[in-house]
Amino acid sequence: MKKSILYKNMNVYLDLAVEAHDLLRGERGAEVSGVIMDKEQLEDIVVTTITITNQQGEKELGRPKGHYITIDAPAIKDNDFHDHKKVIEVMSKHLSKLFQFKEDSSILIVGLGNWQATPDALGPKVVEKIMVTRHLFYYTPEEMKGKMRKVSAISPGVLGLTGIETAEVIRGLVEHVKPDYVIAIDALAAGALERIGTTIQLADTGINPGSGIGNYRKGLNQETLGCKVIAIGVPTVVNAAVIAHKTIEEFFGQMESEPVLAKIYNEENQQVFLNVMNKALSPFKDSLMVTPKEVDDLIDRSSRIIASALNLSIHPGISADNYETYLQ
Amino acid sequence: MKKSILYKNMNVYLDLAVEAHDLLRGERGAEVSGVIMDKEQLEDIVVTTITITNQQGEKELGRPKGHYITIDAPAIKDNDFHDHKKVIEVMSKHLSKLFQFKEDSSILIVGLGNWQATPDALGPKVVEKIMVTRHLFYYTPEEMKGKMRKVSAISPGVLGLTGIETAEVIRGLVEHVKPDYVIAIDALAAGALERIGTTIQLADTGINPGSGIGNYRKGLNQETLGCKVIAIGVPTVVNAAVIAHKTIEEFFGQMESEPVLAKIYNEENQQVFLNVMNKALSPFKDSLMVTPKEVDDLIDRSSRIIASALNLSIHPGISADNYETYLQ
Amino acid sequence: MKKSILYKNMNVYLDLAVEAHDLLRGERGAEVSGVIMDKEQLEDIVVTTITITNQQGEKELGRPKGHYITIDAPAIKDNDFHDHKKVIEVMSKHLSKLFQFKEDSSILIVGLGNWQATPDALGPKVVEKIMVTRHLFYYTPEEMKGKMRKVSAISPGVLGLTGIETAEVIRGLVEHVKPDYVIAIDALAAGALERIGTTIQLADTGINPGSGIGNYRKGLNQETLGCKVIAIGVPTVVNAAVIAHKTIEEFFGQMESEPVLAKIYNEENQQVFLNVMNKALSPFKDSLMVTPKEVDDLIDRSSRIIASALNLSIHPGISADNYETYLQ
Amino acid sequence: MKKSILYKNMNVYLDLAVEAHDLLRGERGAEVSGVIMDKEQLEDIVVTTITITNQQGEKELGRPKGHYITIDAPAIKDNDFHDHKKVIEVMSKHLSKLFQFKEDSSILIVGLGNWQATPDALGPKVVEKIMVTRHLFYYTPEEMKGKMRKVSAISPGVLGLTGIETAEVIRGLVEHVKPDYVIAIDALAAGALERIGTTIQLADTGINPGSGIGNYRKGLNQETLGCKVIAIGVPTVVNAAVIAHKTIEEFFGQMESEPVLAKIYNEENQQVFLNVMNKALSPFKDSLMVTPKEVDDLIDRSSRIIASALNLSIHPGISADNYETYLQ
Repeated sequence: MKKSILYKNMNVYLDLAVEAHDLLRGERGAEVSGVIMDKEQLEDIVVTTITITNQQGEKELGRPKGHYITIDAPAIKDNDFHDHKKVIEVMSKHLSKLFQFKEDSSILIVGLGNWQATPDALGPKVVEKIMVTRHLFYYTPEEMKGKMRKVSAISPGVLGLTGIETAEVIRGLVEHVKPDYVIAIDALAAGALERIGTTIQLADTGINPGSGIGNYRKGLNQETLGCKVIAIGVPTVVNAAVIAHKTIEEFFGQMESEPVLAKIYNEENQQVFLNVMNKALSPFKDSLMVTPKEVDDLIDRSSRIIASALNLSIHPGISADNYETYLQ
Repeated sequence: MKKSILYKNMNVYLDLAVEAHDLLRGERGAEVSGVIMDKEQLEDIVVTTITITNQQGEKELGRPKGHYITIDAPAIKDNDFHDHKKVIEVMSKHLSKLFQFKEDSSILIVGLGNWQATPDALGPKVVEKIMVTRHLFYYTPEEMKGKMRKVSAISPGVLGLTGIETAEVIRGLVEHVKPDYVIAIDALAAGALERIGTTIQLADTGINPGSGIGNYRKGLNQETLGCKVIAIGVPTVVNAAVIAHKTIEEFFGQMESEPVLAKIYNEENQQVFLNVMNKALSPFKDSLMVTPKEVDDLIDRSSRIIASALNLSIHPGISADNYETYLQ
Repeated sequence: MKKSILYKNMNVYLDLAVEAHDLLRGERGAEVSGVIMDKEQLEDIVVTTITITNQQGEKELGRPKGHYITIDAPAIKDNDFHDHKKVIEVMSKHLSKLFQFKEDSSILIVGLGNWQATPDALGPKVVEKIMVTRHLFYYTPEEMKGKMRKVSAISPGVLGLTGIETAEVIRGLVEHVKPDYVIAIDALAAGALERIGTTIQLADTGINPGSGIGNYRKGLNQETLGCKVIAIGVPTVVNAAVIAHKTIEEFFGQMESEPVLAKIYNEENQQVFLNVMNKALSPFKDSLMVTPKEVDDLIDRSSRIIASALNLSIHPGISADNYETYLQ
Repeated sequence: MKKSILYKNMNVYLDLAVEAHDLLRGERGAEVSGVIMDKEQLEDIVVTTITITNQQGEKELGRPKGHYITIDAPAIKDNDFHDHKKVIEVMSKHLSKLFQFKEDSSILIVGLGNWQATPDALGPKVVEKIMVTRHLFYYTPEEMKGKMRKVSAISPGVLGLTGIETAEVIRGLVEHVKPDYVIAIDALAAGALERIGTTIQLADTGINPGSGIGNYRKGLNQETLGCKVIAIGVPTVVNAAVIAHKTIEEFFGQMESEPVLAKIYNEENQQVFLNVMNKALSPFKDSLMVTPKEVDDLIDRSSRIIASALNLSIHPGISADNYETYLQ
């Protein structure tokens, strides 16, 4: 039973490149061509960088060339500000590598997602906490110089609230605000419960619709917006199909001593498992999300961490000693 | 494999009396003593009334004596206000039966749950939409007479936001406001995905902690509050253990032609299935909720329906022709 | 003491064309050239239409050619939904005259102002209550046909929240959404307390910065957006300088029997009165707003009226019998 | 023209004891019996302590015996976090003097006012930012010991939202939560524009209705709640009658060289000035508030300062080095 095929049939998209890569390598038992993985272990934080280097890698992983940095830190989920500080510093360091700021670079921060739906509200929550400075340059350009960069920030809402595609709103904005960087923040769907509220992904490839390769025109990326687009995300949900699938896997795991079951597992055509999953998730299927009750706390904590790391990496006048002061 | 035992082990509580009753009857293949069920079919709406008549029924169903009315209407979920009107009228009729209003009866409406967490925000959303009238009786008692009853409404928040048990807040309020009825609105957890956003439960037994029998001192009920307590709820989530369990059931359903599997299913001790479910839901287990992406829309619609039905059944001066006007 | 000159010095701008016109006519004792006024009395509602017909009128009134319709109805302020219905129907009728809809016309509704500041939140509140339909045309175009027009709606926030000029956001949006009409909703500043929460102004000239004539490039109007722009506003505040000025006027009114005071009033140079007003309003001056404590109720009521009238005039499938149903 | 009599007639109540005291001393040209005033100047912060020592002082100042500490610091209004730190430390020091904490003291923080109305939202904004700890003592009492005290916090809303008097809600809560201290936060009305957003008043006398002496039963104070009640407030508005009155004063100030005007000012009976003010503020009168456009920023800043100072003075484990970390 190939997980990758089941997931495709159930419309389960893995937002984290690191998960898509693990899945592929696992099923194949070999390195994926055109993809380089690098791991860095820092005390309680693991940073994994996936670099897609060519078209082969793009096709295999279903996402464009570029860097996908995953910060894994169980501390994100806990209410310990001391540990958050370490995460903020690591994240800020990696963000700084993705940016090539000039003194007068300007940044537009976009909070994707629906502010009325808790697990989807990460983007708008970060935007609320970010310090906006662009308009201050009209009034006191001298005071700002060398200390702050121009930051604007907006949460464009979702199609159901506004009747307008988010990408349309952002494109219109970018043409007028003309930022050097767009930073798009979005809640992600993970492939494993463990990742909810414990992982941050940074990518210099923008946000691209799940369908992937060859269809970049609908995304928020350099091709469509004309400027560099950094994407930041935290998993807040897992597609319910992942739970259904994992239940089957665990069942066969428990039963592996039964030879007849091992046989079923190996021989069974995918359709049977697809039927099982579809029935278990009926009548909702695609739109069913699994999320812990405490997701509002997780989003509150991760949005503080992201906003802090952004303030810290964007503005020369903000340091590890004073970044908390600039949280709105 | 007994679903009732698995659910108990996984801390899955069925908030709907009708589901608890179905489960029990199904496993037992017989009527449950001390419980009467009555069904009424109205076009696209089914109203099921479970009446627990004695201690035996209380023990079996794990909830106190009284009436549990379930309104099943797929229309609640849809965006068709014409169909909503029918649901509102049916609900209002049944609410009126639960109340024995006098002309000067006063009602305190309590929105339970966390307004910051979408699937839990049903109660606060209803409170926002309810017309509050109690204070108007100070100023224009004559104008209100015969048309309106005294309604006050509050959303006390949750323990994590205030540091105070909801029951403490409500008890304090009731001692001072001295209402004749408390109506408590809460989001529920169902045992089946089909029920999310399509079912409304009314009960004249108040809200009682899942543990059930013999421990009513912590609930919101006549014993603790000293006045009649009506509970109104709509399922907005399903415990993720329900999905895991249903996946296993569907797998064995698909495989029933394999005799060896039927044997496993029937002989297997509960522990194996418990292990499977626990691993599939690790590391969250209890707190994992499954909810459709569109839960904010579902809550918006059901809170309009509940607030409308409450306005309609409480106030003599509000009729089926004008109730929309009084939605806040 | 010329009110118009004092107001100019104190940066008091009269958002209502009808007030600017009254002031001018009053000081001049004659009709204003290039301006036509028409009054219609309907029971408790007065509708005044100011039409600026040429450049002379533009210059005199400090605003562009077009129609400014003022609906005066004390009932807007009261909590009587029966009376609101009449206002909604009158407003809807006048809106329909300003629009020349085709079957497939599309409309972008823009809620100007700051949703965090009560007296400024009128626009965002209307946007919350408006039914958005544009995205439904992707999915069920046949069902919508002939019943609904395409409506999108957004509240772009204010400069201090986003760092971006509202006009920049709107221009970007319009280029992508390409609506036939933009409807911009904004809270207004009146010249008289009586108008707070009792007046609605409709204009087919868009929103133009106070500076007025010759500088339309910064406004939201046909010149800058390339489509017709309807502006809708309700006064929610009065500049504090209006109170200071009215106090002086009332004082001299009470004292008119004292010849020495009449002399002072007539001879006194403007500077003395300006000094008095400036000192009375120090240290805030320009930014000081006067608003009744109940402004949140007033905004709630007027935003319901505006959203209802918009739904009613835009969609063929919505009538006076069912518009309440479509309020979000 | 006696300001105190005019204010009484116009229902202008001065929430700040320091303003009421200044007014009285000014008109009388002498110390007020039963009232002691003490001033402390610290760089850019002035702390004035008014102590009412006996019934004579109570009657004169129209408020109960106790301490009223006013912190005047223009920096509160500005967006400079460095200066805020100084204010937070001064405020925290004075709060600590008002409290006599034991290790296990518990505190209930009450955010008075309407969260839907900007200038009234100070209390709810502080409550949002306060760290709530009371419920943590159930789970990890050992971890909390010696570092944290038990804090619960609630915003009970206003009469128009809930239909319940705030005092009823609070009394009910206090009977169940049984705190050692209630801290009530409320937005205040000042007698001078300069004080908006620049002054914090602390009082150990609770919150008492404007009517004052002899009617403490309706307030939130030790008599009604049975525990010590600390009140904290920041002026966010000025009654519009204050502006009208100041305009008249400034006019006579400008005109003092005209002997006839000095005569009018001195001889004129109060009724003329009352008529002027009433007409200038018609049709609203009492409920008209003057507030700067930027009041939402002022409330945001002062609520951060208050929440920080509370965290700092309540919890032994929070110090000047880390209080920002505990802001929610």
